[in-house]
Amino acid sequence: MNLAAQFETWLPRIETEMIDVVETCFSPMPAELRTMLLYHLGFADAQGAPARISAGKRIRPMLVLLGCQAAGGDPMHALPAAAAVELMHNFSLIHDDIEDGDELRRGRPTLWKVWGIAQAINSGDAMFAMSHLALLRCSLRGVDPVRVVRAMGVFGRTNVHLTAGQHLDIGFETRSDVSGAEYGIMIEGKTAALIRASLEIGAILGGGNDAQIAALGEFGRCLGLSFQLQDDVLGIWGDPQQTGKAGSDLIHRKKTLPTIFAAEQDPIVRDEYMRALSVSEADAAILRERITIAGGRAHTEAAAEAAYRNGQNALNAAGSSPAVALLEELARSLLGRST
Amino acid sequence: MNLAAQFETWLPRIETEMIDVVETCFSPMPAELRTMLLYHLGFADAQGAPARISAGKRIRPMLVLLGCQAAGGDPMHALPAAAAVELMHNFSLIHDDIEDGDELRRGRPTLWKVWGIAQAINSGDAMFAMSHLALLRCSLRGVDPVRVVRAMGVFGRTNVHLTAGQHLDIGFETRSDVSGAEYGIMIEGKTAALIRASLEIGAILGGGNDAQIAALGEFGRCLGLSFQLQDDVLGIWGDPQQTGKAGSDLIHRKKTLPTIFAAEQDPIVRDEYMRALSVSEADAAILRERITIAGGRAHTEAAAEAAYRNGQNALNAAGSSPAVALLEELARSLLGRST
Repeated sequence: MNLAAQFETWLPRIETEMIDVVETCFSPMPAELRTMLLYHLGFADAQGAPARISAGKRIRPMLVLLGCQAAGGDPMHALPAAAAVELMHNFSLIHDDIEDGDELRRGRPTLWKVWGIAQAINSGDAMFAMSHLALLRCSLRGVDPVRVVRAMGVFGRTNVHLTAGQHLDIGFETRSDVSGAEYGIMIEGKTAALIRASLEIGAILGGGNDAQIAALGEFGRCLGLSFQLQDDVLGIWGDPQQTGKAGSDLIHRKKTLPTIFAAEQDPIVRDEYMRALSVSEADAAILRERITIAGGRAHTEAAAEAAYRNGQNALNAAGSSPAVALLEELARSLLGRST
Repeated sequence: MNLAAQFETWLPRIETEMIDVVETCFSPMPAELRTMLLYHLGFADAQGAPARISAGKRIRPMLVLLGCQAAGGDPMHALPAAAAVELMHNFSLIHDDIEDGDELRRGRPTLWKVWGIAQAINSGDAMFAMSHLALLRCSLRGVDPVRVVRAMGVFGRTNVHLTAGQHLDIGFETRSDVSGAEYGIMIEGKTAALIRASLEIGAILGGGNDAQIAALGEFGRCLGLSFQLQDDVLGIWGDPQQTGKAGSDLIHRKKTLPTIFAAEQDPIVRDEYMRALSVSEADAAILRERITIAGGRAHTEAAAEAAYRNGQNALNAAGSSPAVALLEELARSLLGRST
């Protein structure tokens, strides 16, 4: 089965599992809270009527299932965990949108914009709680409780790691002296940790041994890092039409690795951009040039490439199987690369 | 061992376990995030220096340990779960303070007041994640993984129940037509669920059978309800000096059972108070009289008494043992009653 066929087969099952968790894990669920959760996940409109809104690529749950298969397991055993990581990811987006003040997500008003901050915080907490219940459903599919407990441990530590990354990211907004090293620690938590955990949890539930679990986890971590670093490059030099972003990261004053690296080399980038209150289109064009000259782009591209290679090496250590080949294909497709 | 001796023996162990979870569950923890968590728990000041600030009665973790003993278990096996429910309770307070806009908790500025809303939401999420890791530590103390998974299930469903209760409570603020039945559903989630879960989880980890687990859980649920209903009476008729509240619930326009019941009987309470934008001290005195006359106090006291009696009956079904006697003593002490 190729990658497209895998998605076609498994995405409906993953989404059915997610909806089943939301609909059945607690009763009676207040109707409005149910609507909020299904709206955010793309399964309902703001009145609670069924809808199918494109709600992300569902990469993480697919990585759980492929990780399970790569470790020699039956992906049906890991299906609840696939739903769990996707619910977890979506919970974090609910709270991120409040923390960042973002009013739109995938073209629709964010939860806090529709229902207010108090209800949105609380609905995020509900989804966070449900993600744990989703993972526990592996027990119902015959997974050894020892492995369920181990997977819950990875899940829990990852969730703390995510909040550590988010803590740093929020702090960066008001700082002009963020270092490249600090940035690396932030994206390890905010981006790489859950992708790593998706593969580790899949491998644990698939019956993998410690070496397989570690190799697949390291592949996931590297995939997360290379994806984030490539996204940082696209955020400055990409075509907004293609990236789907509402404007350059420079205009939004986002501190990503190209800028942080350039600020370490070029005092003008450091003193003017990192402390700027606003950046015009014209400023952004000049700044983009300065960052390129200071090596911010080349440095970030090299870091993304190194992470990708490390990921490939880790994946090779996980053995060779159709699932491993699919993971390699998924990584290439996600990063838009042919080799 | 009497109740005071139990608290004296176990409170330091519970707090050591809580601190150990926060300090060791993830590394490297950003220093400021660590400070926020320890500050909220009463173990540090806002600069992160060690402190011992009175941070609640720690009733819930004590109920976990007594539930474990009442089911015939060794409380050391349930110590991680005791830390888990207290971390869970404290996580919910972090988010409640943001949702309610409360600026003070136990005489100190709330987390969001010191560090801002974005960081406070995120630190609550960190504590929520940690509460799950705390519970998983039961595995390290030799509890059968099947029982750990079962306890995690109760914990997860309870956490969803809490958010369902909180969702209703937030919604009540802007509604003038809340019914007594709706209020009952709200406090089942917001107050009773975690107290019930504390006893259930303790009983599960203590090796209890299904009947013991159910009986102890029902005792906890009834204890939570009777405590809340009694608190509702004190919030209107209690002496602010004794209750430690900054003013009557009436002045804060809190909709608790006495008022909701009275509004169902008396159109003036319904039309004037439930829709009032502010309530003066003089208004409150008049209103208090009207609520008494409409039967709001008597109704709430009767409901609290009924819940207490149901709880006692449930506890009797859990058998007789020193731990059961201590639970009975704890309930009486919490409710300030002699029989």
